[in-house]
Amino acid sequence: MEFDALIKTYQSRVENALDFWLPNADTHPQTLHEAMRYSAISNGKYMRPLLIYATGDSLGIARESLDGIACATEIIHAYSLIHDDLPAMDDDALRRGKPTCHVKFGEAMAILAGDALQALAFYVIAHDDKLTVDAKTRLKMIDVLSLSCGSRGMAGGQAIDLQSVGKTLDIAQLEDMHIHKTGALIRASVMLSAYAASDQPASILEHLDHYSKCVGLAFQIRDDILDVEGETAVIGKQQGADDALNKPTYPTLLGMAGAKARALELHEEAMQSLSHLDQRAEPLRMISRYIIDRVS
Amino acid sequence: MEFDALIKTYQSRVENALDFWLPNADTHPQTLHEAMRYSAISNGKYMRPLLIYATGDSLGIARESLDGIACATEIIHAYSLIHDDLPAMDDDALRRGKPTCHVKFGEAMAILAGDALQALAFYVIAHDDKLTVDAKTRLKMIDVLSLSCGSRGMAGGQAIDLQSVGKTLDIAQLEDMHIHKTGALIRASVMLSAYAASDQPASILEHLDHYSKCVGLAFQIRDDILDVEGETAVIGKQQGADDALNKPTYPTLLGMAGAKARALELHEEAMQSLSHLDQRAEPLRMISRYIIDRVS
Repeated sequence: MEFDALIKTYQSRVENALDFWLPNADTHPQTLHEAMRYSAISNGKYMRPLLIYATGDSLGIARESLDGIACATEIIHAYSLIHDDLPAMDDDALRRGKPTCHVKFGEAMAILAGDALQALAFYVIAHDDKLTVDAKTRLKMIDVLSLSCGSRGMAGGQAIDLQSVGKTLDIAQLEDMHIHKTGALIRASVMLSAYAASDQPASILEHLDHYSKCVGLAFQIRDDILDVEGETAVIGKQQGADDALNKPTYPTLLGMAGAKARALELHEEAMQSLSHLDQRAEPLRMISRYIIDRVS
Repeated sequence: MEFDALIKTYQSRVENALDFWLPNADTHPQTLHEAMRYSAISNGKYMRPLLIYATGDSLGIARESLDGIACATEIIHAYSLIHDDLPAMDDDALRRGKPTCHVKFGEAMAILAGDALQALAFYVIAHDDKLTVDAKTRLKMIDVLSLSCGSRGMAGGQAIDLQSVGKTLDIAQLEDMHIHKTGALIRASVMLSAYAASDQPASILEHLDHYSKCVGLAFQIRDDILDVEGETAVIGKQQGADDALNKPTYPTLLGMAGAKARALELHEEAMQSLSHLDQRAEPLRMISRYIIDRVS
């Protein structure tokens, strides 16, 4: 199957799952549910769900068993974007080519939409009866997801980010920030999917974990590159936003050529870590390539 | 045991649990962890943990089995207060007699502290090995907790609250708001504790559920009364804040005497729902009385 068609298949699955799990916009309290849907179902890349389905395909897991965790990780990502865009944080007015949640619904409703989305993600994993794992595995998934988005994961990365604005970071500090801020949830996505396959040898889990670390970091480097080279209309958010906030980035630390070389290096490392998997892992290989080539 | 001493025993237990589960303030990222601790361990009433321990005592559950869920529900409550106090929400500068989280740490860090606390609550329940229940019961607890704090619970109540400012509500609408905003988490606290006791007859769960609904609403009515009659120094937050925001309250709808009569009626209903429990339920009875008599 062509990569583009495969991606569309994955994206369509997760959009259906989001539509299923998010309360309807006519359910009380309506405005909150409308705001949650506006931000969670929004023509995004659905990178975390893509990785979940691709990991599942490479291990032979039925896709319908993964819809819930794909939905849950995307919901966590969506909540983080809402809060990240708030005036007190990055103060972004544009996201995925649309007004950000607080511009559309007001700051207070945006804060609550993010809060409620986070709770919903855990609800989905606790509840989803298409996820065919035992209760202990499900708890392990909740464990991993909560750790990846808490103070030692994504929220911690945002805090490091906040405190880095206007400061000179070295490359280790910049990586530390991104390993928390975006890496942790990307890594959790791949691992949640892998846990859905019973009896995987520990070595396969380790290889997939290493893959997820590489693509997570490569994803962020590409984001930094696009913030400089991308066009606002294509990337769906304001070009040059990092620079305007005086945020440390890979291009400022490594130069543009250095940043691109580092992204390529991480892609090659990701490919290497998949070498023990058969051709069913092709989607994971294509996603890694896509991450460093994408223009939005 | 005297009520005051019992309350102190419960409070001391949950403070120890919070100290155990919250990452140390010297753990990276430090400021975020400091902000989380500042708001979660803060001389509060710990009403939800009190209800959890009292429910446990009335069913003969070992208290150490309840420390984790007491901690988790208090963490959820603490996160909700942080976000509720933000300038975009109620814009409160004082909480529990101290500067609110955003006044102390800045708005962005306060948003993140709330976010990270929410994730931590689910982590604690998924993880706590002193909680002696099977994996399925633990999942049911996560299910109930996530529902109680999401869009159809606490966060939903905040959204209803937001949209009620400056509007004329009738008593049914006011109750609907509070059943979501504070009632859902109080109810979840009692039920989580009850689930920790295996083999309870359904009727006992129903009676406890009814008790929790009554005290949850009575708690809110008393809060509204204290907002009018309390002293800022005693209640630990700005007296008259609801009125200043033109928020609908029980005293404005029922009159002060009517609001007090309704609180007493709910207390009596709560006592009635405990009539099938023996004298071990005495702490639950005392807490119900305390809720409608408290001065802070």
